[in-house]
Amino acid sequence: MFFEGYDDARTQGMIGGGRFSAVYRLEAGDEQTARSMAEDICVEQTVEFPFSLLPPGAVPRELTGRVEAIEKIEKNEKEHGGRYLAVISFADEIASGEFTQFLNVIFGNISIKRGIQLAGIRPDRAIFEFLPGPRFGVSGIREIVGVPDRPLLFSALKPMGLSAADMARLAGQFAEGGIDIVKDDHGLTNQVFAPFEERVSRCVDAVRTANAKSGRRSIYVPNVTAPSGQVLERALRARELGAGGVLVTPGLVGLDTMRALAGPEIDLPVFAHPAFIGSYAVNPQGIAPHVLFGTLMRLAGADVSIFPNYGGRFPLSREECLATARAGREEPGPLRPIFPAPAGGMELANVEEIIRSYGGDLLVLIGGGLFRGGTDIVLNCRRFLSEVERGFSLLQAKTNGRRACPSSCRCP
Amino acid sequence: MFFEGYDDARTQGMIGGGRFSAVYRLEAGDEQTARSMAEDICVEQTVEFPFSLLPPGAVPRELTGRVEAIEKIEKNEKEHGGRYLAVISFADEIASGEFTQFLNVIFGNISIKRGIQLAGIRPDRAIFEFLPGPRFGVSGIREIVGVPDRPLLFSALKPMGLSAADMARLAGQFAEGGIDIVKDDHGLTNQVFAPFEERVSRCVDAVRTANAKSGRRSIYVPNVTAPSGQVLERALRARELGAGGVLVTPGLVGLDTMRALAGPEIDLPVFAHPAFIGSYAVNPQGIAPHVLFGTLMRLAGADVSIFPNYGGRFPLSREECLATARAGREEPGPLRPIFPAPAGGMELANVEEIIRSYGGDLLVLIGGGLFRGGTDIVLNCRRFLSEVERGFSLLQAKTNGRRACPSSCRCP
Repeated sequence: MFFEGYDDARTQGMIGGGRFSAVYRLEAGDEQTARSMAEDICVEQTVEFPFSLLPPGAVPRELTGRVEAIEKIEKNEKEHGGRYLAVISFADEIASGEFTQFLNVIFGNISIKRGIQLAGIRPDRAIFEFLPGPRFGVSGIREIVGVPDRPLLFSALKPMGLSAADMARLAGQFAEGGIDIVKDDHGLTNQVFAPFEERVSRCVDAVRTANAKSGRRSIYVPNVTAPSGQVLERALRARELGAGGVLVTPGLVGLDTMRALAGPEIDLPVFAHPAFIGSYAVNPQGIAPHVLFGTLMRLAGADVSIFPNYGGRFPLSREECLATARAGREEPGPLRPIFPAPAGGMELANVEEIIRSYGGDLLVLIGGGLFRGGTDIVLNCRRFLSEVERGFSLLQAKTNGRRACPSSCRCP
Repeated sequence: MFFEGYDDARTQGMIGGGRFSAVYRLEAGDEQTARSMAEDICVEQTVEFPFSLLPPGAVPRELTGRVEAIEKIEKNEKEHGGRYLAVISFADEIASGEFTQFLNVIFGNISIKRGIQLAGIRPDRAIFEFLPGPRFGVSGIREIVGVPDRPLLFSALKPMGLSAADMARLAGQFAEGGIDIVKDDHGLTNQVFAPFEERVSRCVDAVRTANAKSGRRSIYVPNVTAPSGQVLERALRARELGAGGVLVTPGLVGLDTMRALAGPEIDLPVFAHPAFIGSYAVNPQGIAPHVLFGTLMRLAGADVSIFPNYGGRFPLSREECLATARAGREEPGPLRPIFPAPAGGMELANVEEIIRSYGGDLLVLIGGGLFRGGTDIVLNCRRFLSEVERGFSLLQAKTNGRRACPSSCRCP
């Protein structure tokens, strides 16, 4: 006996019986191989120890992962190109109330393996206790900007190199033209050209001034992605200065830092940017796009998940993108639905199609594309707004069972 | 003109001329395609704006990335399976003195693309100013444990479910048997079975007691991977309690949190664990293994980089693993060399081969494998020690140009 003094009754007494699950897509030639891969995951992600040498009782029975189901995937099903789905459950106690450790259990060491894709996350009540999800979600953000139903207009301040005053001028023009949410480009942090504090202060003022003119309630969302320990600090400062939300890149600061950012201390909508984390989603081995940009961002407290849209300059398929939006509304469980913000090389010409695909609860993000229509930014934004209104009318007409207008129609 | 008031002389005046570079492996059929991919990266990672519409002067000329070289890769070269290598430089100012933004520039949005692998990082002086690398490195850790030349013995406390007292008993046996560095398994955080504070306190004591008996200077390295804001807190507490180093999983807490952990406030050797970050390294699109586990961990302040060894249960090749060890010694630039800790399913039988492959500056990590040789842990550790001493003697004999002993030899 290796573990002298080990008291199984003590360990057993600390286990409440609640379990969360993860779903994995396994590339395996047959069911036996799939089962053996699933059993490896059960050990690798928990006790990481030769199974036959474990102390008896609760450790192998409760603390090691448990294969709950294995199911063959039909070869031609598009969303899952692999062969088997395995559902594996884990005792709540091993997550220890920590999001970092929860992530470690569902995809830590197996991130280094091959042929495994995290294809679903199924938290139980114990997990939702420390992962309450977004504070605002779709309805909270709609309330803030005062737009009850249509898709929201979303754009980004750029390029890097402009002064804070130039950025603010641009922000004011965006807001005047009808952009509901003006965010920093995700590469703007604290560069000397437009330092954080000055940029936030000026942009907030410019958007306020534009709102006073337009009667709208547009918001400015600065990027608070920053070195360790400074993210919450910048967010607090942004809040003091009057920002309407915060942009963060969880791939750079860690998903758990986004969770903290989404808490009551900051109390602002959180916009998640997909930079640096994309490799999980575009490769065969990793995290399915809808789980990464949908389920996981929502679980980590994002109110808006920006992700690479199909048809632009990124490689996700239409099915993967729509599944991402769906996951952000529905998975996992009882959290607030979040806004999808499909992005990357979108133009005015894509607006109608985006709305038709995603529906009305959507942030339509056009960045550089807003500059292509002529040199009057305010006018370009107005065109963007009327495209969104037109696309939404078409959608509503369709939803209401009426004949959709032809694409040449300009009816309100 | 879009950017009313934009003052090119002001922006130009803020740019010092220093640039850092990154190397990318591009999957491209011909040089023209490779060049066009490289030019896309220059824009995508910086201004993210239609190039032709940028304000004139410094923004397109200095702040946009610059293709410095494009080179065809020979088809059969093993370390680089792709077709072209592109070197791209970026102005120091866009990194803004922030590791998070530096990472965003070298691999932010392009992490979502396809056919791009980060294959090298070349910081310049401005980057090393905020990324001073490890405080201890190989020589610092050797000094702490009092072992001047041979490979160090490294093992992990597990399985989860044991009490803190059981873990401590195990730690004491490890140290008594000759393990130089006893770490927590990376899945031990603050679970109810062996809470952080109690575990650290007891394990430190047990290793001290064993040291007093053995005359060695073994250390205990607890896992401080924790939710946002608690990592440094746990590390400080570990330090107060007498821990000899800290284990962290940068994939879970963010690379920049590891950088902060490696700073003067904690002043303990940092051991980086590869969980959750592996998908970057095992896929065609991502970060080359030697860059991720070698260059980047060193740049982020790790004194030891634990990574999946070839021949165990993970998929990296021998070439990739040896390149990782080399990168940790040599890349990038003037930082302290760090210890490679190849791991994952290693057994006593692999020790000689590991030492022959990696050389003497190595942490030999055997975890579960230490339990396979019989029920006397102390004895198993002693066998491990003599295997390491034997492997190192063989290596020295070979290095000194003498005939290496046959593998059956047991000479000291």
